[in-house]
Amino acid sequence: MAKFMDVHRSMKGITAEALQEAHQADVDIQGDEGVDFQHAWADPDSGMVFCLAEAPSADAVRRIHERAGHPADDVYPLPVEV
Amino acid sequence: MAKFMDVHRSMKGITAEALQEAHQADVDIQGDEGVDFQHAWADPDSGMVFCLAEAPSADAVRRIHERAGHPADDVYPLPVEV
Repeated sequence: MAKFMDVHRSMKGITAEALQEAHQADVDIQGDEGVDFQHAWADPDSGMVFCLAEAPSADAVRRIHERAGHPADDVYPLPVEV
Repeated sequence: MAKFMDVHRSMKGITAEALQEAHQADVDIQGDEGVDFQHAWADPDSGMVFCLAEAPSADAVRRIHERAGHPADDVYPLPVEV
Protein backbone atom coordinates (compact mmCIF):
# COMPACT_ATOMS: atom_id res chain seq x y z
CA MET A 1 0.00 0.00 0.00
CA ALA A 2 1.12 3.50 -0.81
CA LYS A 3 -0.23 6.97 -0.22
CA PHE A 4 -1.80 9.15 -2.89
CA MET A 5 -3.17 12.68 -3.09
CA ASP A 6 -5.80 13.20 -5.71
CA VAL A 7 -7.02 16.58 -6.80
CA HIS A 8 -10.38 17.74 -8.16
CA ARG A 9 -10.40 21.24 -9.67
CA SER A 10 -14.06 21.83 -10.55
CA MET A 11 -16.03 21.58 -7.31
CA LYS A 12 -16.85 25.25 -6.78
CA GLY A 13 -19.50 25.79 -4.16
CA ILE A 14 -19.13 22.35 -2.60
CA THR A 15 -20.79 22.17 0.82
CA ALA A 16 -19.84 20.11 3.85
CA GLU A 17 -22.84 17.87 3.16
CA ALA A 18 -21.89 17.36 -0.50
CA LEU A 19 -18.29 16.52 0.44
CA GLN A 20 -19.52 14.05 3.03
CA GLU A 21 -21.83 12.41 0.47
CA ALA A 22 -19.07 12.20 -2.14
CA HIS A 23 -16.66 10.74 0.40
CA GLN A 24 -19.25 8.20 1.53
CA ALA A 25 -19.84 7.16 -2.10
CA ASP A 26 -16.11 6.40 -2.34
CA VAL A 27 -16.01 4.59 0.99
CA ASP A 28 -18.98 2.44 0.01
CA ILE A 29 -17.05 0.85 -2.88
CA GLN A 30 -13.38 1.43 -2.00
CA GLY A 31 -12.97 -2.15 -0.74
CA ASP A 32 -13.41 -3.44 -4.30
CA GLU A 33 -10.00 -1.97 -5.15
CA GLY A 34 -8.30 -2.14 -1.76
CA VAL A 35 -8.39 1.67 -1.42
CA ASP A 36 -8.70 3.51 1.91
CA PHE A 37 -9.79 7.14 1.54
CA GLN A 38 -8.54 8.77 4.72
CA HIS A 39 -9.30 12.46 4.46
CA ALA A 40 -10.72 15.05 2.07
CA TRP A 41 -10.38 18.83 2.19
CA ALA A 42 -12.26 21.33 0.05
CA ASP A 43 -12.02 24.98 -0.94
CA PRO A 44 -15.50 25.89 -2.24
CA ASP A 45 -14.28 29.25 -3.63
CA SER A 46 -11.66 27.81 -5.99
CA GLY A 47 -13.36 24.43 -6.44
CA MET A 48 -10.27 22.52 -5.34
CA VAL A 49 -10.71 19.27 -3.42
CA PHE A 50 -7.78 17.23 -2.10
CA CYS A 51 -8.24 13.57 -1.11
CA LEU A 52 -5.64 11.56 0.79
CA ALA A 53 -5.78 7.79 0.33
CA GLU A 54 -3.85 4.62 0.84
CA ALA A 55 -4.16 2.37 -2.17
CA PRO A 56 -2.38 -0.30 -4.20
CA SER A 57 -2.04 2.07 -7.19
CA ALA A 58 -3.05 5.44 -8.61
CA ASP A 59 -5.31 3.62 -11.06
CA ALA A 60 -7.21 2.04 -8.18
CA VAL A 61 -7.85 5.51 -6.75
CA ARG A 62 -8.95 6.75 -10.19
CA ARG A 63 -11.35 3.84 -10.70
CA ILE A 64 -13.10 4.30 -7.36
CA HIS A 65 -13.54 8.03 -7.90
CA GLU A 66 -14.84 7.43 -11.45
CA ARG A 67 -17.34 4.80 -10.35
CA ALA A 68 -18.50 7.08 -7.50
CA GLY A 69 -19.25 9.78 -10.05
CA HIS A 70 -16.49 12.30 -9.37
CA PRO A 71 -13.38 11.48 -11.42
CA ALA A 72 -10.13 12.99 -10.14
CA ASP A 73 -8.28 15.48 -12.32
CA ASP A 74 -4.91 14.28 -11.03
CA VAL A 75 -3.62 11.53 -8.76
CA TYR A 76 -0.13 11.90 -7.26
CA PRO A 77 1.82 9.18 -5.46
CA LEU A 78 3.33 10.40 -2.20
CA PRO A 79 6.44 8.33 -1.49
CA VAL A 80 7.95 11.10 0.64
CA GLU A 81 6.30 12.75 3.65
CA VAL A 82 7.05 14.49 6.89
CA MET B 1 -7.21 29.59 13.02
CA ALA B 2 -8.11 27.91 9.76
CA LYS B 3 -6.66 25.11 7.67
CA PHE B 4 -4.79 25.62 4.42
CA MET B 5 -3.27 23.39 1.77
CA ASP B 6 -0.40 24.90 -0.13
CA VAL B 7 1.04 23.45 -3.27
CA HIS B 8 4.54 23.55 -4.73
CA ARG B 9 4.83 22.37 -8.35
CA SER B 10 8.56 22.49 -9.05
CA MET B 11 10.24 20.17 -6.56
CA LYS B 12 11.16 17.33 -8.91
CA GLY B 13 13.61 14.89 -7.38
CA ILE B 14 12.96 16.02 -3.80
CA THR B 15 14.31 13.51 -1.27
CA ALA B 16 13.01 12.63 2.16
CA GLU B 17 15.98 14.51 3.65
CA ALA B 18 15.32 17.62 1.56
CA LEU B 19 11.62 17.62 2.49
CA GLN B 20 12.53 17.26 6.16
CA GLU B 21 14.99 20.16 5.89
CA ALA B 22 12.45 22.36 4.12
CA HIS B 23 9.78 21.52 6.67
CA GLN B 24 12.16 22.26 9.54
CA ALA B 25 13.01 25.64 7.98
CA ASP B 26 9.30 26.46 8.07
CA VAL B 27 8.84 25.17 11.62
CA ASP B 28 11.80 27.21 12.83
CA ILE B 29 10.06 30.50 11.95
CA GLN B 30 6.36 29.61 11.79
CA GLY B 31 5.69 31.02 15.25
CA ASP B 32 6.40 34.52 13.93
CA GLU B 33 3.13 34.35 11.99
CA GLY B 34 1.14 31.97 14.20
CA VAL B 35 1.35 29.20 11.57
CA ASP B 36 1.45 25.48 12.40
CA PHE B 37 2.71 23.31 9.52
CA GLN B 38 1.24 19.90 10.29
CA HIS B 39 2.16 17.63 7.40
CA ALA B 40 3.90 17.67 4.02
CA TRP B 41 3.70 15.08 1.23
CA ALA B 42 5.85 14.96 -1.89
CA ASP B 43 5.83 13.30 -5.30
CA PRO B 44 9.44 13.54 -6.52
CA ASP B 45 8.49 12.40 -10.06
CA SER B 46 6.02 15.23 -10.75
CA GLY B 47 7.63 17.73 -8.37
CA MET B 48 4.37 18.28 -6.49
CA VAL B 49 4.53 18.98 -2.75
CA PHE B 50 1.42 19.46 -0.60
CA CYS B 51 1.64 21.12 2.82
CA LEU B 52 -1.19 21.13 5.36
CA ALA B 53 -1.15 23.95 7.90
CA GLU B 54 -3.25 25.74 10.45
CA ALA B 55 -2.78 29.46 10.17
CA PRO B 56 -4.46 32.83 10.70
CA SER B 57 -4.45 33.51 6.92
CA ALA B 58 -3.19 32.30 3.55
CA ASP B 59 -0.81 35.24 3.48
CA ALA B 60 0.76 34.07 6.75
CA VAL B 61 1.42 30.68 5.13
CA ARG B 62 2.88 32.40 2.05
CA ARG B 63 5.18 34.60 4.10
CA ILE B 64 6.65 31.72 6.10
CA HIS B 65 7.29 29.63 2.97
CA GLU B 66 8.84 32.65 1.21
CA ARG B 67 11.13 33.47 4.12
CA ALA B 68 12.14 29.80 4.40
CA GLY B 69 13.22 29.90 0.75
CA HIS B 70 10.52 27.82 -0.94
CA PRO B 71 7.56 30.02 -1.93
CA ALA B 72 4.28 28.19 -2.51
CA ASP B 73 2.72 28.24 -5.97
CA ASP B 74 -0.79 28.19 -4.51
CA VAL B 75 -2.39 28.38 -1.06
CA TYR B 76 -5.97 27.15 -0.66
CA PRO B 77 -8.18 27.68 2.40
CA LEU B 78 -9.92 24.49 3.49
CA PRO B 79 -13.15 25.45 5.24
CA VAL B 80 -14.71 22.06 4.43
CA GLU B 81 -13.27 18.67 5.31
CA VAL B 82 -14.24 15.11 6.05
